[in-house]
Amino acid sequence: MTNERDKRKTPQTPSAVPTAVVERLSLYLRELLHLVRSGKETTSSNELGGRLGFSDAQVRKDLAHFGQFGHPGIGYRCEALIAAIRAILGTDRRWPVLLVGVGNLGRALLGYKGFVPQGFELVAAVDITADKVGTRVEHIPVEHFDLLEKIIDREGIRLGILAVPAAAAQVVADRLAAAGIEGIVNFAPVTLSLPENVSLLGVDLAMQLEQVSFSVANRQRSG
Amino acid sequence: MTNERDKRKTPQTPSAVPTAVVERLSLYLRELLHLVRSGKETTSSNELGGRLGFSDAQVRKDLAHFGQFGHPGIGYRCEALIAAIRAILGTDRRWPVLLVGVGNLGRALLGYKGFVPQGFELVAAVDITADKVGTRVEHIPVEHFDLLEKIIDREGIRLGILAVPAAAAQVVADRLAAAGIEGIVNFAPVTLSLPENVSLLGVDLAMQLEQVSFSVANRQRSG
Repeated sequence: MTNERDKRKTPQTPSAVPTAVVERLSLYLRELLHLVRSGKETTSSNELGGRLGFSDAQVRKDLAHFGQFGHPGIGYRCEALIAAIRAILGTDRRWPVLLVGVGNLGRALLGYKGFVPQGFELVAAVDITADKVGTRVEHIPVEHFDLLEKIIDREGIRLGILAVPAAAAQVVADRLAAAGIEGIVNFAPVTLSLPENVSLLGVDLAMQLEQVSFSVANRQRSG
Repeated sequence: MTNERDKRKTPQTPSAVPTAVVERLSLYLRELLHLVRSGKETTSSNELGGRLGFSDAQVRKDLAHFGQFGHPGIGYRCEALIAAIRAILGTDRRWPVLLVGVGNLGRALLGYKGFVPQGFELVAAVDITADKVGTRVEHIPVEHFDLLEKIIDREGIRLGILAVPAAAAQVVADRLAAAGIEGIVNFAPVTLSLPENVSLLGVDLAMQLEQVSFSVANRQRSG
């Protein structure tokens, strides 16, 4: 939206940044918020990485994609680095978000307390089921899916969360894309195909369990 | 559990493998399953990486942590690599999983279709609320949290999913650890502290949105 032409000033264009780096930015952000809450004003790549299991070199390399953030003899100023990472992630603003599908997962997402502190606010929910449309969940009115375009326009929504059954996900995603949604987080366990101008992230909840089963299955028994 | 002493035969002990590599293994596994479904018997690091946005070198380096899987002139045999990755992730077996907390998120997880194909089966659910205990959700009986030890023993459970309110998460996690649970996936938006012999993964749903907001905020408008 803003200063797209200023990209060349940064060491690397964001589109060339590996996904894993962006994921680590999210982790650094959380760790920095944790440090600030515990009263710290500055930190180092060593401390920041150490608490997350990454090397200090990894932290410096990741941040170097986006500019120069450390200060000689000081390290990183926590608040300044938080602001910088939020600007990179785009969460230095408020993102109104549309929820599609008000089943159990949709209800859970509407009640999830972790979105707002990071700048995301579920402002609208749509469904096609007659006994859901017209109700409110967590103070959010559930509207009919057919009002999609009107709701997106009314709330200035660019991001959507899909919490619909797998069989419906592609059709719904196509409708969201056609209605101008620019980014979609898909919770349905199915791979979607969308135009290149829509950012898509599929959340596979089994992957989280796999990370843990890996650790448990391969644990070195000590002592 | 099994052949812990054989670890030295592998090029690197799993505990030294970076988390990001394990995450990519999960992605390679899904891509390989997709390739097999579409009729492919072999693939290359170039194809496997290309479909996920990683370089062929990255794929080879990741897999080299665990052994030698390619065949000269053939590449990777899809089924063999699927079996190998499942063995590495520990998902070449069935993991019975305990769900703690039968709210909206818990109900959504009990109905989630993506767990069983990866080897995870929610076999038991516990809660403390009187009007939930004794009911069934998706055919799973909801039992009282106080029966934790008995249920874990009865079902041979080693992994648990926490879907409880943030304020309760640490207390509940401590109880799970004391009852012998070895791995926990925590959906509560709070950082937990657990003994080192319990593998812990916190799922921060806002992080998924951040990955998408990054893409949308930084998109190079083309054309």
